[in-house]
Amino acid sequence: MSDTKEMLETVRAPASLPMAEVATAIDACLRCVQTCTTCANADLAEEAVDELRRCAAWCVTCADVCDVTARLLSRPAYSDQLTIHHVLQACVRACENSAEECARHAQHHRHCAICEGVCRACVEACAALLDAQTIDGLEDLAGG
Amino acid sequence: MSDTKEMLETVRAPASLPMAEVATAIDACLRCVQTCTTCANADLAEEAVDELRRCAAWCVTCADVCDVTARLLSRPAYSDQLTIHHVLQACVRACENSAEECARHAQHHRHCAICEGVCRACVEACAALLDAQTIDGLEDLAGG
Amino acid sequence: MSDTKEMLETVRAPASLPMAEVATAIDACLRCVQTCTTCANADLAEEAVDELRRCAAWCVTCADVCDVTARLLSRPAYSDQLTIHHVLQACVRACENSAEECARHAQHHRHCAICEGVCRACVEACAALLDAQTIDGLEDLAGG
Amino acid sequence: MSDTKEMLETVRAPASLPMAEVATAIDACLRCVQTCTTCANADLAEEAVDELRRCAAWCVTCADVCDVTARLLSRPAYSDQLTIHHVLQACVRACENSAEECARHAQHHRHCAICEGVCRACVEACAALLDAQTIDGLEDLAGG
Repeated sequence: MSDTKEMLETVRAPASLPMAEVATAIDACLRCVQTCTTCANADLAEEAVDELRRCAAWCVTCADVCDVTARLLSRPAYSDQLTIHHVLQACVRACENSAEECARHAQHHRHCAICEGVCRACVEACAALLDAQTIDGLEDLAGG
Repeated sequence: MSDTKEMLETVRAPASLPMAEVATAIDACLRCVQTCTTCANADLAEEAVDELRRCAAWCVTCADVCDVTARLLSRPAYSDQLTIHHVLQACVRACENSAEECARHAQHHRHCAICEGVCRACVEACAALLDAQTIDGLEDLAGG
Repeated sequence: MSDTKEMLETVRAPASLPMAEVATAIDACLRCVQTCTTCANADLAEEAVDELRRCAAWCVTCADVCDVTARLLSRPAYSDQLTIHHVLQACVRACENSAEECARHAQHHRHCAICEGVCRACVEACAALLDAQTIDGLEDLAGG
Repeated sequence: MSDTKEMLETVRAPASLPMAEVATAIDACLRCVQTCTTCANADLAEEAVDELRRCAAWCVTCADVCDVTARLLSRPAYSDQLTIHHVLQACVRACENSAEECARHAQHHRHCAICEGVCRACVEACAALLDAQTIDGLEDLAGG
């Protein structure tokens, strides 16, 4: 159990998004930073590095995008829903890319198998937030 | 003069975007990381910190978004135009927020005056890339 | 339970450090990125922001240092023990600073109370790795 | 000409370090983030990726360390000289590693030749700051 949800609830700010789902997305993003960073590093050390170039490149980028997503979601005060919206979309896309590329190598490389799963969990958590934005925050977004 | 464009041109990858404009956007983002990081820090040290809360919060977030934008644009190989598209949109929005908030304090705080200008230059450079994507990369995006 | 240790063990690289302790430090750093990022944001939204300036400044920096520490520790292949050594020292120091400042506000602000604990756990995990380096990696460091 | 020094001078904080040299180091770090990020990406796209694994790994890490160094140096208020000291040491070491590895490939790969030079400039700028700390900030460090 992480402290993420409890931390978010200490912030004096109007809740723009359901905090339980934000906490889930933050934790999924941080896991993805870790896993993608290690997967890219592991790719470079494999004999078959030639076949793992795209995996290394996309995992490095996925880690960077998940990192900024976790940071923005961790700031409920003075948050801007439209910035978060675009970052969540980037995060879903980057995680999908990594998941799909990792899936192609999952049978031969354990790091890719684990990484695929972590990326897919992150897609799910960020997509859930995007859905929540569409329903609850539509006016904010339109007003932005 | 930075080495950015020259570095980008050494990468063996199909050019999805005009490299001169990518280089301009990277350099604008890196300047914005620097300026927004210092502006947020300067806000905390002002007597009038009470009025600068939003500025501090938005500049920290703007620095983070510009950072990831510079990183993604610095990777021409195995780039994904749709991830970049969403990140550029987030960057334009975050820079607009910081610029507008800094503008409100520019008369009283020199760091806000400088920061406003740097943020607006970053908006312009990233918006130019978004335009270039729409024209040149439309099929890539649709196919993504 | 996180996947961190399992991921690290998939990397084809000589283990310079005990992987269980590396995984603990990575997870502690990622928690600290989350908690410090939210604590700094929460500080800005408090009525008493005037008294929380230092806390906000140090938590932002602590998050940045923990972030890079988690990234470096997540790359067992082609790792450099001396770079890691300096980064761990910076991380211990930055976490100590945040913990001590948060401790001063812990009675009045729940985010500071939680953040203090998370920072102290990160100090402990990184200090344990520094100890392990001194014993196991002394020759590497001297040779570096 | 960048705005870095001018920005630093707007911050209401006692100058712990000579601001002209801090500005030079920040700009050198940001250039190194850019160049190392592109060099690592370029490595992955080369036919000879097999020989460039270490270069890719070290440049990714160098970019991360330079990034956090630029961020910490950009915050003159509430800065902690000891944290900065360790981060500067990590930065010098990471840049030296990248420079030396890039030097081995500089004849065959233009990105490595450029990157070597940018890394060496960053080593020099950060080493100058470490020297300034030893002279001016010794008591702060001892007292830290």
